[in-house]
Amino acid sequence: MKRLIAATALLSTTVAGLAFAQQKPEDEIRYRQSVMNVIGRAMAPMGAMAQGKAPFNAAVAQKNSALVETLLSLPWNSFGPGTDKGAPTKAAPKVWTEAAKFREAAENSQKAVANLAAAAKTGDEGKFKAAFAEVPKSCNGGCHDDFRLKEFRN
Amino acid sequence: MKRLIAATALLSTTVAGLAFAQQKPEDEIRYRQSVMNVIGRAMAPMGAMAQGKAPFNAAVAQKNSALVETLLSLPWNSFGPGTDKGAPTKAAPKVWTEAAKFREAAENSQKAVANLAAAAKTGDEGKFKAAFAEVPKSCNGGCHDDFRLKEFRN
Repeated sequence: MKRLIAATALLSTTVAGLAFAQQKPEDEIRYRQSVMNVIGRAMAPMGAMAQGKAPFNAAVAQKNSALVETLLSLPWNSFGPGTDKGAPTKAAPKVWTEAAKFREAAENSQKAVANLAAAAKTGDEGKFKAAFAEVPKSCNGGCHDDFRLKEFRN
Repeated sequence: MKRLIAATALLSTTVAGLAFAQQKPEDEIRYRQSVMNVIGRAMAPMGAMAQGKAPFNAAVAQKNSALVETLLSLPWNSFGPGTDKGAPTKAAPKVWTEAAKFREAAENSQKAVANLAAAAKTGDEGKFKAAFAEVPKSCNGGCHDDFRLKEFRN
């Protein structure tokens, strides 16, 4: 499993033509947490709109969903071997012991968010809400529930 | 000055049709640090390319500069009144005591990054490098040197 992630990370690195392999574990942890933090802030107003707590704003839906789609492509290579510790993290050990499952969960969440961005682009409130309803299933249900701890561990 | 930032923040909030005014200072600090962290990671390969330490990759230049342009529009409302403390931060007190100057510096850095993204879109290495050379002047020289401390303060 670890070999799979390492190979995938190496592939991405090669494709980008750049070497990121020397990032320290604490930097990787901080980076992936930062990505998730920015995603969370972008999700909040979409959640409020989806739940009818804020009026639907097509521009915000489109802008924020596009940002989340872009950001959600970024953190996965920062869960590479050796990044399971080095700074406080909520990443469960299963991220590394069940790496293939984790990668699949990550891919599912990316698909849900890509669908959300596509729906938001139409400017249609109903399509946005329908697509948003699918996001928690893959992000929370598929990934956070299984691969994110409730509390930070060292 | 504080009133200016508050008014601007309020305006943005109104435009977005969403209320973010109740974020805790520590959440604002964490958010703006997260944005800057993700920006830093996206800048690194562009810096390497600009300095000739990595071969020019038009796709990476375009993708990363677009991401940085988007991200650099996000953190400013998180420097609002009351967010000068609440968690360790490198933001200098001048951010709040010289708020108009800070806002101008922030705007200049956004312009430099918008120019970079436009240059990267052309796919032309020379244009990318010329635009990249302007970025440190506004980001580091104009903003980090004046408004970011060397060490975290509480």
